[in-house]
Amino acid sequence: MREVAIIGIGDTKFGELWDLSFREIGIQAGLAAVYDANLSGDEIDAIYVGNMSAGRYIEQEHVGALIADYAGMTSNHIPATRVEAAGASGGLALRQGYLAVASGLHDIVVVGGAEKMTDVGDLKAIDIQSSAADQQWECAFGATFASLHAMIARRHMHEYGTTREQIAHVAVKNHKHGSLNPKAQFQKEISLDTVLRAPPVAEPLGVFDCAPISDGGAAVVLCAMEKARKYTDTPIRIMASAQASDTLALHHRSDICSFEATRVAAERAFKQAGIEPKDVDIAEVHDNYTISEILAIEDLGFFKKGEGGKATIEGETAIGGKIAINSSGGLKARGDPIGATGVAQVVEIVAQLRGEAERRQVSGAEIGLAHNVGGTGATAIVHILGVV
Amino acid sequence: MREVAIIGIGDTKFGELWDLSFREIGIQAGLAAVYDANLSGDEIDAIYVGNMSAGRYIEQEHVGALIADYAGMTSNHIPATRVEAAGASGGLALRQGYLAVASGLHDIVVVGGAEKMTDVGDLKAIDIQSSAADQQWECAFGATFASLHAMIARRHMHEYGTTREQIAHVAVKNHKHGSLNPKAQFQKEISLDTVLRAPPVAEPLGVFDCAPISDGGAAVVLCAMEKARKYTDTPIRIMASAQASDTLALHHRSDICSFEATRVAAERAFKQAGIEPKDVDIAEVHDNYTISEILAIEDLGFFKKGEGGKATIEGETAIGGKIAINSSGGLKARGDPIGATGVAQVVEIVAQLRGEAERRQVSGAEIGLAHNVGGTGATAIVHILGVV
Repeated sequence: MREVAIIGIGDTKFGELWDLSFREIGIQAGLAAVYDANLSGDEIDAIYVGNMSAGRYIEQEHVGALIADYAGMTSNHIPATRVEAAGASGGLALRQGYLAVASGLHDIVVVGGAEKMTDVGDLKAIDIQSSAADQQWECAFGATFASLHAMIARRHMHEYGTTREQIAHVAVKNHKHGSLNPKAQFQKEISLDTVLRAPPVAEPLGVFDCAPISDGGAAVVLCAMEKARKYTDTPIRIMASAQASDTLALHHRSDICSFEATRVAAERAFKQAGIEPKDVDIAEVHDNYTISEILAIEDLGFFKKGEGGKATIEGETAIGGKIAINSSGGLKARGDPIGATGVAQVVEIVAQLRGEAERRQVSGAEIGLAHNVGGTGATAIVHILGVV
Repeated sequence: MREVAIIGIGDTKFGELWDLSFREIGIQAGLAAVYDANLSGDEIDAIYVGNMSAGRYIEQEHVGALIADYAGMTSNHIPATRVEAAGASGGLALRQGYLAVASGLHDIVVVGGAEKMTDVGDLKAIDIQSSAADQQWECAFGATFASLHAMIARRHMHEYGTTREQIAHVAVKNHKHGSLNPKAQFQKEISLDTVLRAPPVAEPLGVFDCAPISDGGAAVVLCAMEKARKYTDTPIRIMASAQASDTLALHHRSDICSFEATRVAAERAFKQAGIEPKDVDIAEVHDNYTISEILAIEDLGFFKKGEGGKATIEGETAIGGKIAINSSGGLKARGDPIGATGVAQVVEIVAQLRGEAERRQVSGAEIGLAHNVGGTGATAIVHILGVV
């Protein structure tokens, strides 16, 4: 397996993009990445697209071919592949694209992620969300995606003494980061009080504990490292790409305060990269709910199990803290167009490692990690990136 | 890239499987393949699942993790990846699994395909089908998946003098083959008259020109060739795996009597395998409509453009003819559970190459080709298999 570099990044603004269709979102992100990589387009060998549920959001499957077509890539009849693993679809697309280049099969691959969620009503969007969990044995009995995460939060509070305030502070911190990101869905700071007094969704989680429903797209261009300098002076190395799965339903786990898939994927990734958690400067983690970020920073090894909440409220995960978590604003404030999210995380890491993150730049960032989760931890994807 | 063998195959009966859920179908096929490969299960490094639209058929996304979970493969937290390219989802899953083994990343990979289509009404199933085509610019204006193929048929008749009887004979031949396959949805021969007098769906195509709505699953086990003999005495070699894409909408093509994606994928596959179309003994091609088989056998190079209909009615594509096309009964008679189809084609080829196809055995078959199409030719996947 050979080394792979990211030579281009692109993304759309995240939010309620009423004036853009799904395909326009995909193309806007893809072309931005292609231009950023200084490609003319003919050099592209294949495209991978991460998307969770275009079938239900816009009644369109086959979105790999769709994006390749509308991005003008069908003249060479390049392979176009859509992959899906619910919330981890974007990270999964990146991993498949990475493997295609690492294996020597392709030299240049575009990986995109997109979702158009706001064309359906909020209730339907929430219903679609729950198809990431076990419909037959969880949701059919009344569980929602939020209520499953609420159970995790309650158990974490019970087991480790994590407080409601600590959990809420994830939202405060990520909104602060989002306020520094001109492409974030929410660019407004919020107070702890705002989170605590928000309407409940599934207690203890309220509206501000949940990532929003979003439209958006993101893309990266991958290139064999040996050819990367031809296109860019600042190639970013993919040091590791790892994936793990777990039971779909929460009730089949021995412990719901930890996502075993995250733990295993992280272990595999750190081994591949030859580094330890303490070597990571920045991380984008899957904070679809505030509690998810606390689980993530513990399961990834940045903090001991049970100490994620404390670390958060003490500012250790903010820009300028021990490790900057979700400098983009995360799913919470940047937004969570599901299929785009895993790719967008990597766009942020690359921007940070290149030193192009402007007002939210983490100084001296050299190694970054992206952590993308599908369902309630049935799929986890971890990528580690580094400056060359 | 190293050589890859198929060491195990499994499938369910195709049809209206009222007593099996989606996950049970997936597991039944997967376990059959695992047993056929003499695996205990722990050796499996990853799983790839082809599925078109579980999100809409059963309101469940994330089916890679689902199948891995219910097949008991989560103890090792192996990567589980779902891929989708409409009707080509199964072939695409095989191709991704093939790449994972050929690259040296994994030694043993299970590739499965499944679809559960009969839990929704026929009209909804037909609506879902059309999400393989361009919803925004074809189907929104009234085109159905069948009517798009009807236009192809009309044009082929106009350009090449292909007759209604020649097209209808695809169904007669495939039903005859299906009558020899105990797992086919339709195991009954039909007459030319039955096809011609059937209720019209989109003229010139009638009910018997269309593949049915089906439930079913299929799976294969892939293994690095160097380790294949450890598990089986009859490994089947994957000589080539190729993929190509084209515009999603028919109206963007310069010629609708040919699927350029099929032509290009076949060219790439024949080049990789180092053989020519005349070297192929058997082929499973994508006959979702009768006209599709005629396009396929021409585009794959088995017959000259315009001569596919004549070859069919003269028996050249029947078992015992020049090249046995769709000995399984094809999508038309074996059934077409969309995500399963591309994998099921390969299950049939392997059974034939092993000499295990019983009443429908093609004598002396040594090289087989599987051709899987998504939409109206926006994705084409071609695999070539051979005895070792």
